[in-house]
Amino acid sequence: MANKHKGSRTERELVHLFFDNNFAPLRIAGSGSTPLPAPDLVVGGFGKVFAIECKSGKTTRYIKKEQMEELLLFSTRFGAQPLIGVRFDREGWFFLKPEQLDVTKSGFYSLSLEDAKEKGLSFGKLIGKEI
Amino acid sequence: MANKHKGSRTERELVHLFFDNNFAPLRIAGSGSTPLPAPDLVVGGFGKVFAIECKSGKTTRYIKKEQMEELLLFSTRFGAQPLIGVRFDREGWFFLKPEQLDVTKSGFYSLSLEDAKEKGLSFGKLIGKEI
Repeated sequence: MANKHKGSRTERELVHLFFDNNFAPLRIAGSGSTPLPAPDLVVGGFGKVFAIECKSGKTTRYIKKEQMEELLLFSTRFGAQPLIGVRFDREGWFFLKPEQLDVTKSGFYSLSLEDAKEKGLSFGKLIGKEI
Repeated sequence: MANKHKGSRTERELVHLFFDNNFAPLRIAGSGSTPLPAPDLVVGGFGKVFAIECKSGKTTRYIKKEQMEELLLFSTRFGAQPLIGVRFDREGWFFLKPEQLDVTKSGFYSLSLEDAKEKGLSFGKLIGKEI
């Protein structure tokens, strides 16, 4: 539960970051009554739509294969750009495309801080301005 | 509460209608922890994005001026087409543009069954096919 609450807090933080930069962010209720494929956030603005699965924590984050497939299915249908948004403690947010993530032997997508720093976009880079 | 539950039921119905026609619908949690402007539904697909405020009932429906302003603000930011989706009992869904609604003397937008039938699009017309 602690992790879940923390995840919600960091998601809300990201929602406000987009809103304060004149995007229209939508936070999708996870435990909704219509369990259709949907990412954590969908953000529109400036001719772009991002579909973002959010992860946060101290160390390497993992994403289930099924969750990634749902993100891709949703994004294709909606016409959105699929992204993994990851926030490592005291490092801020990084945004990566699904194909930039490694896949473990057991079929999980994995994302280390090192990979995020090397391959990911900062929030400023993602929205096209440094903040 | 009865009306609120019924509203939720009809919204879920519309979500499934879009999903079954290969759109990607998002139902936005009304009582979320981030009370930023957001419509009831946001639906993407086939190069379009609809932002839909949903109403349902037996007789003329009313929308507060503030609620309409939020719909327009959200739609402009996101890059979505703003719509009022109204479902009258035993009449199915009609979709209207905000500017097609009348405004009452007290500043509410109003939508009667007659206006919906005269000016509104059916679901099939909205998505570009008759179903």
